[in-house]
Amino acid sequence: MATGTFDLIHPGHGYYLKESKKLGEDEGRLVVVVARESTVQARKRVPIVPEKQRLEVVQMLKVVDEAVLGSETDMFSTVQEIKPDIITIGPDQNFDLDWLRQELEKRGLEAEVVKINDYHESSLDSSCKIIKKIREAEFPPGSFKHC
Amino acid sequence: MATGTFDLIHPGHGYYLKESKKLGEDEGRLVVVVARESTVQARKRVPIVPEKQRLEVVQMLKVVDEAVLGSETDMFSTVQEIKPDIITIGPDQNFDLDWLRQELEKRGLEAEVVKINDYHESSLDSSCKIIKKIREAEFPPGSFKHC
Repeated sequence: MATGTFDLIHPGHGYYLKESKKLGEDEGRLVVVVARESTVQARKRVPIVPEKQRLEVVQMLKVVDEAVLGSETDMFSTVQEIKPDIITIGPDQNFDLDWLRQELEKRGLEAEVVKINDYHESSLDSSCKIIKKIREAEFPPGSFKHC
Repeated sequence: MATGTFDLIHPGHGYYLKESKKLGEDEGRLVVVVARESTVQARKRVPIVPEKQRLEVVQMLKVVDEAVLGSETDMFSTVQEIKPDIITIGPDQNFDLDWLRQELEKRGLEAEVVKINDYHESSLDSSCKIIKKIREAEFPPGSFKHC
């Protein structure tokens, strides 16, 4: 089980998901939990892309066997439904792993928690960088008239 | 063979590629030609995402069997290399189909040209709309400090 916002898809997402899938070995299925608008808003910033569309794009990825929207109120209810053997935490996700492991144990959930630390380097390797570039770019007048 | 810029991936891309793949029936392979920076620049606007990264993201999509960067000088040289049975034109690509068919014939290329007209509706169903939304959104100060 991997999780994330997946606001604007970039190769860093692909790398994180591929590494997650590898941990499941040959028979492994990768289930991706896409964060809800409300939970992202509370943690970092309003995503540009609505949750339904973020889910659809994640479902388009080769490496993804199944993708679902997360819970708006309790992240552990999603874990309870999926019952993953492994939960991977992405390079830019700053969960406290010890806290997470304790909370899982409290609930009788036996998932192993693995931090994916490596990062695939590409020039725009975060949604944040892509947004920043768009904010700073200059476009000729009328560039967005037709859309 | 499908083509496009694929600047910021959205479900409309997925729909166009899926429809393209269907035309190839069971044994069909979908090869996607990703437009070079220089050719996009001449036609519409500078893409936000560099061509290498756009290629990598297209390669991450389930429906894509192979993806390559296009030619910077002659689009027909790419067709000559790929030798597709069918070339699909996306809903937002305004090629003159008759001209295209004539040019293919002139070069002895027997690809059938099919326009994909349907469009998958989602709220941000073009790179243009995504960029526009980002340009118009308000972000709290310091939103991009960490990236």
